Parts: sequence; structure tokens; C-alpha cells
Amino acid sequence: MSRQLILEKIQQAVEILNEKDIDMWLTFVRETGNITDPMLEVIVGTNATWESAFIITKSGERHAIVGSLEVANMEVVNTYPNIHGYLKSIEDDLLAILNKYNPEKIAVNYSQNSSLADGLTHGMFLQLQKYLTGTPFKERLVSSEEIVAALRGRKSPTELSIMKEAIKETLKIFDQVTEFIRPGVSEIEIANFVKDIVRQKGFGFAWDEEYCPSVFTGPDTAGAHSGPTERKVERGHVINMDFGIKLNGYCSDLQRTWYVLREGETDAPEEVKRGFNVIVESIQRAADAIRPGAVAYTIDDIARSFIVENGYEEYPHGLGHQVGRVAHDGGALLAPKWERYGNLPYLKIEKNQVFTIEPRLTIEGFGIATIEEEVVVTENGCEFLSKPQKELYLIK
Amino acid sequence: MSRQLILEKIQQAVEILNEKDIDMWLTFVRETGNITDPMLEVIVGTNATWESAFIITKSGERHAIVGSLEVANMEVVNTYPNIHGYLKSIEDDLLAILNKYNPEKIAVNYSQNSSLADGLTHGMFLQLQKYLTGTPFKERLVSSEEIVAALRGRKSPTELSIMKEAIKETLKIFDQVTEFIRPGVSEIEIANFVKDIVRQKGFGFAWDEEYCPSVFTGPDTAGAHSGPTERKVERGHVINMDFGIKLNGYCSDLQRTWYVLREGETDAPEEVKRGFNVIVESIQRAADAIRPGAVAYTIDDIARSFIVENGYEEYPHGLGHQVGRVAHDGGALLAPKWERYGNLPYLKIEKNQVFTIEPRLTIEGFGIATIEEEVVVTENGCEFLSKPQKELYLIK
Repeated sequence: MSRQLILEKIQQAVEILNEKDIDMWLTFVRETGNITDPMLEVIVGTNATWESAFIITKSGERHAIVGSLEVANMEVVNTYPNIHGYLKSIEDDLLAILNKYNPEKIAVNYSQNSSLADGLTHGMFLQLQKYLTGTPFKERLVSSEEIVAALRGRKSPTELSIMKEAIKETLKIFDQVTEFIRPGVSEIEIANFVKDIVRQKGFGFAWDEEYCPSVFTGPDTAGAHSGPTERKVERGHVINMDFGIKLNGYCSDLQRTWYVLREGETDAPEEVKRGFNVIVESIQRAADAIRPGAVAYTIDDIARSFIVENGYEEYPHGLGHQVGRVAHDGGALLAPKWERYGNLPYLKIEKNQVFTIEPRLTIEGFGIATIEEEVVVTENGCEFLSKPQKELYLIK
Repeated sequence: MSRQLILEKIQQAVEILNEKDIDMWLTFVRETGNITDPMLEVIVGTNATWESAFIITKSGERHAIVGSLEVANMEVVNTYPNIHGYLKSIEDDLLAILNKYNPEKIAVNYSQNSSLADGLTHGMFLQLQKYLTGTPFKERLVSSEEIVAALRGRKSPTELSIMKEAIKETLKIFDQVTEFIRPGVSEIEIANFVKDIVRQKGFGFAWDEEYCPSVFTGPDTAGAHSGPTERKVERGHVINMDFGIKLNGYCSDLQRTWYVLREGETDAPEEVKRGFNVIVESIQRAADAIRPGAVAYTIDDIARSFIVENGYEEYPHGLGHQVGRVAHDGGALLAPKWERYGNLPYLKIEKNQVFTIEPRLTIEGFGIATIEEEVVVTENGCEFLSKPQKELYLIK
């Protein structure tokens, strides 16, 4: 992330601190080469080896406390005007800054609901408790999840323009896949075809390369979040692919569905078209309901109910997630009220968040139909960032 | 990490559980694409999206509890014989397994002392507490740091052979740098020369590319853990470089020191040679004392005292750290008893651990002399894995 973009996000963070009435945001980390707080690249711009604290106040002041050997590096990175280097323990500098500002409410980088706001490891939490023992600050800690959700969710114009570009490039690759798919090629061959293009073009992968892309052909596939196999494309298969790139630090995440015509067919069978069209329609209905202020789970419910009403089993996951610097980004999640999603389905949708919409259904005997689109929330609704797939792609 | 190597490390983990008398090791994670527990690649071999638990028992049994959509992937990865998929909440499966084994002592992936054993975020710790409320297991949790330190520290023959290869390749690149350095080239140019070789050869970087390598020329440099600058090599400069590669998943970490001869000089000035030789001698003295059972801080003390006795300022960091899949690996740390190092300086050295030895001193008016070697602990002492630098490299 460029220094300019980091400073933009820090400025946005200060606005959010004021909006949420939180006096201080403390991000406490160590050895980030071993375990990285996902917010560091957004609000700091470099790694830290020894226990380090990055502090942003409601009044807009910023302090970095780092091991003395990393002061010079922080000066080069130049995102924190006040840099404090320590030799033996971070405790004194940390307490000095807390005492200086005497914050009533200190947001710290932990969260039960969101991994992106949960970069504080439990061991580091215990360290922090140790330093704060005997001070009033120990009882003033709150989760940073509201700040992180707002900061990552609300995309700036710069961020949106990069994300649009990533989507455009991804859809180009999907078009190349349509040309490449034919009976006899395996899921792995399709995946390798895609990976070669990604590498040639110098893009990154939006998630773990093991299953980016995921490719599923025919009725007997493994389901989502699995790597491609040696299974070969056959006539009569429904194929779907889940894939995204990383471009200038931002991810895309899209899915498309194909059908491989059998001998003598000029179109997909009725039951295939019906399943596909239920997916298309469920996406449109969900998108029609997305707007600032809508509660996230209600959007999932619209697509889920529509699919069930049409006689298909409900999909075993959420309808959509936010996208950004990581494929699963932000707070609010278009998901059902299942415990595994924590409070994220209960959050309200905000303007400038980018969501996927990705329902799924099984067409018995043919395969799995999925489409994944990306939308951005606007003043009164949402807009598709990806040109939606409305017709099944037919392979001759 | 290959499946074979993961199974080797899991087998080793079972032995360690028996040695330490711990009934169960529970690694609890989520969204590891956003924040990764450093042990996952060692004992699992894939990522996890939803709350997931990886369980190894003292009796050698292994259970993975993952979101239902990731069961197929875990089957392909094939490192856990028992795979449990859940749809809405991990709670029931987790409690069922705890009840089945009724462990008296459960090591969990958190640690105040070691980032490598601290993959449990505080939010996930709170989740775990929630699931365990009302069960006896809530009071039976201990840190996994002892297990992780032993498992990462004790290198298998396979691991050692990869690490030796990484060191050999790294020293070749240092030799190329000796040919490349000349008055007028900048730190950044030297770093880019190195990075180009690393990329051409298909190696990875042992740490953050921003400062891998770090290059420091002359008396006015920034100190460790900073990126290279536009500062140019001049005659009369002492230059040092800190650099490591990642080869087949294992890191090297080495430093070397050069001197650029001034017009008319055929050798370095006495004060430069003296500083350099104090570094060489301090490394040898530390190495002579390394053996299984020695307490880590005593080794630091030997080198530190020798440097101070010779009239130089003590280095503002530890003498050495373990190396492995990450540059700062393992538990025991050859460091002074400063709070920032937690309990790691108090741990005992064990056979087959790989340590760096990397003292530093400033030669006033010339620059910083550092050498970093790697040694492996043997039955009765240690062996150098890197051919030690004994002579200053002279640049004409």
C-alpha cells in the first residue's frame, strides 16, 4: 500500500474514531514476520519485530513505539510523526503515552467477530494486561472491530478504481477459460491454464493458490474450498470456477458457470437452465434489496428463501462477503444468523462497501451452478462492479 | 511443507507431548488467509476459513474439526485421519472430542514468550472460553510454547540438509556481492543486485523484502532493520550486509563485513581490523560455549562481555536466534535478560537447534562491523553450518 493511501486511511480512521466516540486506537503487535496483524499494511506500512504499539488518537495524533533498532525504518516509512524507540521494555513509553492522553475508551486490535480486527494474539493480550496492571487503562479497553469494519468497508474512490480494474482483468481471464474448456481436460489443467495467465500478467492470487482457482466439473465434485482434481470435463457436465486476482493490493472474487453440450444438443437441458436461472434471479433479488442501512442477514435470506422456494437445498454458506485487500474483507457479512458468523450478519450495510453475491445450488446429475458477482453499495442501492452473468456459457 | 515432512513433525509432536506429559495439543484458528498461525504449515498443511480446531493427543490420535465446505480439502491434504465437518457452530464437535479424551492438560496455541506459539488471537481465545464455559476443560488450558519450541527447534536430518543448502546458496551470493561492491554504488543498488539474483534463482526472501538484504555503508548508517538507502559506498567505508534466502521452505540468515581501501592502502587501518577481529573472536568464544543444557543468556553474555571488555559499546540486541522455516524461529534465544525477550533467554539449549551468532560493534569513523554465522547444536557442542568469515573482505 502506498504511503499516500495509508495516510488517507489514517485520516479516515480519525474520522471514524470521532464518529464512534473512541479516544484512542491502539494496535499492539510483535514479530509480524511470523504472525501479521492484517491492519498493519493499512495503517502502518511496515513490519515490526519487537513488541510495538501503533497509536492513533481521536484528535488525530499518531505515535509509534518500536524497538530502538527499528526507529530508522519507521522514519523512512514515515507514516507516524512521533516515533519512540525503546531498548529493554516497551512498558515505560506505552504508559507515558497513555498517561499523556488519558483516554476513556481505548480500542484494541482484538475481536470475537472479525479476524481482520483480531490481530492481537492472546499472549500479547496478556502482555498488555501486565503492563496496564495498576492503571485505570486496564478497564478501558474495547474491541477495535467497529473501527476496522468501517475503515476496511468504506472504500475510497482510489480503492474502488483499483478494484474495478481487478474485476475487469479477472473477467477477461474467465473469457479465456470459456475458450479453453473442452471435454477431456481436467480440473487441474483448467486451473493451471488460469495460473499461467495470472503469472504472465504479473497479478497475484486473491487467496491460497491451492484453490485459486477452484474448478468443479460434473455431478460428483467436492464442493467449495477444495483444490482442483484430475477429474475430467465430460459432455453433460455443469462446470463452475471460483477465482480472483490481486492487483495493486486489492482482490477480486468471482464465479461463473458453464455447461458442456452433449452430442446432438444445441442448448442445455431444461433442468440445467432452470437451476442456472434460479441462481441469476436470486442474485438480482438480493442486489435489489442491498442499500445503506439494510441489515446484512436480510439480504442472505432473500436469496436463500428464493432458492428453497424453487425446490433446491439451501447453500451451506453465506450469500456474500466484503472484498478489499483480502478476499474476505470488512465487517458486515451477507450471511445467515449461524453462530459461526458471530455478529457480522447483524451489522448494517454502509455506502461504498463492496460485497460479493454468490449463491449456489446443485443440479442433480449435472453439477453445481454458482455465480459470484461483486457490487458496490451506493447512496440508495447498489451497482454491479462485474458485468453479471445472465446466460449459461455453453461449451460445444 | 511436504505431507511427508508434516507427518514427521506430527510424529515428533506426539513424542514431545509424552516427554512434557501434556495430554492434548489444540490449535484453534479461523480465516487463516487473513491471519495465519505459524504452526499450521508445520502440523496441518493447509489453510482454514471458518473456526477450525486441529487436535493431536498424547496417544497419537489426530482430529481436525473444520467447516463442512472444507472437509473435502482436508481429505486431499490428508494429514488428519479424523475429519469432522460442521455447518453452524464448531461447539458440539469440539466438546465431543474433549469429552471423549477428557484431557487433564490441554496445550493451546498461545504464548506470552514466543510469537510462534501464539497463533491464537485474543478474540479466538474468548470464543474458546465461551465454548468451554461450564466444562472442566476451561481450567485445564496451558500454553503450547514448550511444545512449539521443542518441535521447531529440534531439526530433523531432512530439515538440516535443506538448511545447509540454503546457507551454501546464500554464501555464493555474498561472494558475488564482494565482486560487485565498488566506490560509488549505493546501498539500494547493492540490494537490488542481490534481489535480482534471488529472483533469477527462484529463491524466496528470508524476511521482509524491504530490508532483505539490509545494506549499511560507512559511519553514518541507520543501524539494523532498516531498508537500504541512496547512500553511496566511499573509500574508507566499512560495509555490512544482513541477508537470507528461503529455500524449500527454510531460511538462512547471515551477515558479512567489507572494507573499501582508501587510495594508497593495501590493508584496512588498524582500528578497523581490531574491531573486526573482536567480532570474530566473540563469535568463536560464544560458539565454544554452546552445548545442550547451557542456558541461552549465558552465551550472549560471553560475546557481549568480550566486546565491552575490548572497549566497545554493547550491541543493542540479542547475540543470536534460532532459524528454521522463519528467520526468527524456535524458543530459546541467545539474548540478555531484558524484559522484551520474555523467558526465552532463560531456556536451555537443545541438540539439533540451529542458532545464529551475530554480534555487532561500531568502528568510529568507518562503519559497523557485524558477522552473522549459523551453527547447529551437537551432542557436546556445536558446529558451524556457514564457513565462518575470519578475514575482512577488502574492496580495492
